[in-house]
Amino acid sequence: MEIVRTIPWMKETVRQARADNHVVGFIPTMGALHEGHLSLIRRARMDCSRVFASIFLNPTQFGPNEDLTKYPRTFDADVEKLTAAGVNVLFAPESKEVYPPEFRTHVDVQGLSEKLEGKSRPGHFRGVATVVLKLFEIVQPQFAFFGRKDAQQVRILQQMATDLNLDVKIVVCPIVREPDGLALSSRNTYLNSEERLAATVLHRALDAARREANTGTRDALQLQASIQGILASEPLVRMDYIAIVDAGSFEPVSRISGRPVYALLAVHVGKTRLIDNLLIEPAAGQNALICSL
Amino acid sequence: MEIVRTIPWMKETVRQARADNHVVGFIPTMGALHEGHLSLIRRARMDCSRVFASIFLNPTQFGPNEDLTKYPRTFDADVEKLTAAGVNVLFAPESKEVYPPEFRTHVDVQGLSEKLEGKSRPGHFRGVATVVLKLFEIVQPQFAFFGRKDAQQVRILQQMATDLNLDVKIVVCPIVREPDGLALSSRNTYLNSEERLAATVLHRALDAARREANTGTRDALQLQASIQGILASEPLVRMDYIAIVDAGSFEPVSRISGRPVYALLAVHVGKTRLIDNLLIEPAAGQNALICSL
Repeated sequence: MEIVRTIPWMKETVRQARADNHVVGFIPTMGALHEGHLSLIRRARMDCSRVFASIFLNPTQFGPNEDLTKYPRTFDADVEKLTAAGVNVLFAPESKEVYPPEFRTHVDVQGLSEKLEGKSRPGHFRGVATVVLKLFEIVQPQFAFFGRKDAQQVRILQQMATDLNLDVKIVVCPIVREPDGLALSSRNTYLNSEERLAATVLHRALDAARREANTGTRDALQLQASIQGILASEPLVRMDYIAIVDAGSFEPVSRISGRPVYALLAVHVGKTRLIDNLLIEPAAGQNALICSL
Repeated sequence: MEIVRTIPWMKETVRQARADNHVVGFIPTMGALHEGHLSLIRRARMDCSRVFASIFLNPTQFGPNEDLTKYPRTFDADVEKLTAAGVNVLFAPESKEVYPPEFRTHVDVQGLSEKLEGKSRPGHFRGVATVVLKLFEIVQPQFAFFGRKDAQQVRILQQMATDLNLDVKIVVCPIVREPDGLALSSRNTYLNSEERLAATVLHRALDAARREANTGTRDALQLQASIQGILASEPLVRMDYIAIVDAGSFEPVSRISGRPVYALLAVHVGKTRLIDNLLIEPAAGQNALICSL
């Protein structure tokens, strides 16, 4: 695996790959890689003849009181994992390469960025959209792969790509979970053993909603109440938000009807903030749903 | 000249040109073409093997009380001029092709966009930056050509291109003027004959500043006072701003020293808003300046 540190070198690497008619797939990450990231790489290897990944701990998507300084940094282990997974090129720039002192441009996806995660983390999605746009301009992939755990992020990036007429296709991949249901996240390493046990409540709550939906419940408030009840049973967990939203607009819905919806969760377990979601899609058959955890 | 109306067709046209190893130059316009635009096209023909232009009257860069509805629309004459000037492809999309109903993404170049033109025209540069980024993504030119009359716009677009790691090189071309010095602008057609005569005061004021600078004046306030005195002598002209700014930061300077500066003017002549500028660059020799009107 080639490791590239500068933008001009990365652009030249991409130019060469495209000149050789490669289909370039791209997985942007902040490092601290886990099986979720590696599942994106395996998917990319199926669709693309060249797989590029990036490791860049993007400061602009962290709020002033968030965990930028303590975010896990595991570069050597990450490189080993990416090499083993078959990544061809790793782009790992320093912060000043991405944000020189004169930097002053930002991208906003209005209407989708201010609510839910964006409300809890002001400026977060501006930081995400801006850095991902920059990475897309540098790497110019035909395909980019993201995990569905960050459902709102993926929706925002898809909207950005559409609105700005980018040539990249954004591929959304399933959530990867621990055997007990906890969605993989680099932040799981913050949890002590008691918190780690309590954190399974996110999956338990969403799974209860899934079962209810599958047995016919279409009332969003009822699903929300079930989720809330299960979360409340876990004393170490403090709720941030529970929302049942349209999967396109991320606006709350009152009933599950003809369009896909997300049940979205954000909680604090101790000092660690975790998110998770359940995707509910109407199936072809009458009243049937496909629920993806 | 080929006229392209849709984004997919334009992308395919560009793809073909790039596959044929053409160097693509691009001139985005809002139509109502004049000799200033045509000078950009002539310059593009010198540097590039394919010249693409666009005509798109971008609604998002007009404020609610501005002249979008009465902005001159001269499509047939524009097509004739572009054809005669040797443009290969004209991209002329409808508004709904550029801004579908779900559109919600915006680009801001912070710090450069809020002052001067941006202060007089809130949201203007957001609209400009966003539509030009979209056009760059659609047309993917190696070079794009802009007139120096819109000095702040060009500076913002250069910053955007740098910050977002775009591959386009932005080429700034000289201001084209009428024989009496009035800078060409599509908005000049709004002027009645009395106003047209009064409008020459912009050039007269900047030319006086040029002469003063050339005879040794380095004090920005003094240059500003001279400009102001000449503008004030014209009763049909109402001043918006006069500013002597660093050509990089667009921050006011008190003295002309080692860096390029702009003398920037914005005035109303009757109901018509006009801008103009003088570029003052330090020459290699001691104390010498190169002044460009």
